[in-house]
Amino acid sequence: MRDDPQRLSFTIDARDGAARAGVIATSHGPIETPTFIPLATKGSVRGLDGDEVAALGYQLILGNTYHLFVSPGPERIAAAGGLHGFMNWDRALITDSGGFQVFSLAHGGVANEVKGSGRSGDHGSEVELTEEGARFRSPRDGRELFISPEVSMQVQAALGADVALAFDECTPFHADRDYTARSTERTHRWLDRCIAWHEAEGPPGQALFGIVQGGTHEDLRRESAEYVAAAAVDGLAIGGTLGRDKEEMAAVLAMTAPLLPEAAAKHLLGIGEVDDLLGGIALGLDVFDCAVPTRLARHGVALAPSPETRWRLDLRKGRWVGDRRPIVEGCPCPACTRHDRDYISYLSRGEELTAVRLLVLHNLTYMRELTTHARRAIGAARFDAYRAAVLGGAAPWDA
Amino acid sequence: MRDDPQRLSFTIDARDGAARAGVIATSHGPIETPTFIPLATKGSVRGLDGDEVAALGYQLILGNTYHLFVSPGPERIAAAGGLHGFMNWDRALITDSGGFQVFSLAHGGVANEVKGSGRSGDHGSEVELTEEGARFRSPRDGRELFISPEVSMQVQAALGADVALAFDECTPFHADRDYTARSTERTHRWLDRCIAWHEAEGPPGQALFGIVQGGTHEDLRRESAEYVAAAAVDGLAIGGTLGRDKEEMAAVLAMTAPLLPEAAAKHLLGIGEVDDLLGGIALGLDVFDCAVPTRLARHGVALAPSPETRWRLDLRKGRWVGDRRPIVEGCPCPACTRHDRDYISYLSRGEELTAVRLLVLHNLTYMRELTTHARRAIGAARFDAYRAAVLGGAAPWDA
Repeated sequence: MRDDPQRLSFTIDARDGAARAGVIATSHGPIETPTFIPLATKGSVRGLDGDEVAALGYQLILGNTYHLFVSPGPERIAAAGGLHGFMNWDRALITDSGGFQVFSLAHGGVANEVKGSGRSGDHGSEVELTEEGARFRSPRDGRELFISPEVSMQVQAALGADVALAFDECTPFHADRDYTARSTERTHRWLDRCIAWHEAEGPPGQALFGIVQGGTHEDLRRESAEYVAAAAVDGLAIGGTLGRDKEEMAAVLAMTAPLLPEAAAKHLLGIGEVDDLLGGIALGLDVFDCAVPTRLARHGVALAPSPETRWRLDLRKGRWVGDRRPIVEGCPCPACTRHDRDYISYLSRGEELTAVRLLVLHNLTYMRELTTHARRAIGAARFDAYRAAVLGGAAPWDA
Repeated sequence: MRDDPQRLSFTIDARDGAARAGVIATSHGPIETPTFIPLATKGSVRGLDGDEVAALGYQLILGNTYHLFVSPGPERIAAAGGLHGFMNWDRALITDSGGFQVFSLAHGGVANEVKGSGRSGDHGSEVELTEEGARFRSPRDGRELFISPEVSMQVQAALGADVALAFDECTPFHADRDYTARSTERTHRWLDRCIAWHEAEGPPGQALFGIVQGGTHEDLRRESAEYVAAAAVDGLAIGGTLGRDKEEMAAVLAMTAPLLPEAAAKHLLGIGEVDDLLGGIALGLDVFDCAVPTRLARHGVALAPSPETRWRLDLRKGRWVGDRRPIVEGCPCPACTRHDRDYISYLSRGEELTAVRLLVLHNLTYMRELTTHARRAIGAARFDAYRAAVLGGAAPWDA
């Protein structure tokens, strides 16, 4: 671990068991943790302008290196003053490394693969993976592209992220132990190359997080955590598969999280279901990104305090005609304070843009409420009670 | 013409030639004219919530009787307190009669037909048209639906419009004189049935506008204007084809507009291009609805002061990489005050929802600026100079 407050400082304000409430200071302002990170995959959070994302209370968004590398390309974004300038976002920005998307091409599926629910794909059918990096064809125009630790760092430098993520291979669930071990070692060598490039040419204020791999194997996770913690990184992220289901994920996280250095800011990659996020917070993880809240909105699904349906209220499938209740009673979002289920359900079934937008606003408000109240509960040393109440079906603001 | 301020009153504040600045008072507040009306076709203005439409300065939106009749149906909307309650819109609301959409099914094309640019369709291929009304199949689920003057009025009563429009046959451009004459007479008989139903069962505060038909034929337009003006309506609208091109439209309007009673609030149906709208204002027309500004947004096209491209700036087709200018310099909309063409063009090409939303906000701001400044120019007795400046390429706020 480095300790360079010019790049990033992480202060822990309160602890409650392993859970903590902290502040990550970046050159684009503070990030109060624990926090969920909305995805601005291709330079916008679905349907929202940056000022609206800030108005929801978010201090950090995540840009997607792979997608922005493919289009519009790093030069165009750099010319606009980085992703901050390009999309006019003046708060903190983290970018992923592109590894996840590239290896999703390689390993067949995408998120499902990593989460164990997909089928085995065709290894390397579209991606040529070598020690040097990964060669693939642009899904946009077929042109050959190459991404390596150095290229990923270079792109993230052009994007001007406050926090860059090291380029890793995101090992899928179906990979065997031997593949995972070799892949994790390569990820470590890539980390060293990322650090070398970043030290020499990275933007001065940019922090770099290393990614802990090792799949579901305790010894590999331990080796990886030790390797990354010993490297000159400003924080750590947990990547790769966490198992085939929620139980295995909980076990892998419970085993992995304590291996990370206590003082580090810790990012759990790609996880953002309500229960999983609370589980991560309980284990001392600080930041969480996930496509689910915005993706659900596109499909007419709202987050709601219903553990029995995995916190999902499907406004397209239920019987909502004449239902005058808001999506969630007490929710401060524009959808809930202004509209009822009857109307939003009608709009969503009709594929109206306004429905997607209202549901994005609701789902992001819900996630922000979840972490804001988790933070307060940690400060009041009652996080376990808060978590139990939410898992029991309470709304975050009532838990 | 009726004169019942309980239903509607129209006051003319200023005149400049035939152009006038007025206020239509409705039970949901005033409408300053001339004004453009955003379409809330299926219960929402594309991508916007009602409070955002109001924040843009709009005092009136248009709901679509045909679409809302097909889904979700008038009962469901009535149960929500009408369209005002259903979509939570507390300003004025006008609803069309459904005739345009039904006869678009019948006559083959849709708007193109009426505007003369389409091909001749199959008369009655999907719609059975009788003196009684029109029978057609729901495009949604194939169920047989019937709409007549009485049904249209009933639906508009359920929608709770402040201004309802009489059920008419919207005669297409390709109809011959004989067909247009017979159709216009039927529209008149239908108007009488609308008035009879409305007098007996219409909501007390609801105004009713009659529609002047007659195609491109001066004598038919004159007969129609006289018939409608003599009926117990609260205002008049001009419907039907206005010819094959802009020149013919201008001629038909110049011939038709003076036939309408001076004191009446006058609505030009389906017209909202910048030059056409200014032409309509010059002829004393007051309100204008059109799908174009919101539809253009979906296709990446922004309104801009460029007469040579019909006030269109295509952000998907032009060369906008690195263009740091706002869509239109000086425009007060969120897209122009926060973003540049480079970014919006990138988002729009990528079919990002945020692009549609930003362009809807821009295009509706542009139309609102156009009519607000037209109103001021009329008040200052300089409408001709204003119109000439806009037609010459000035932005509304500079003209």
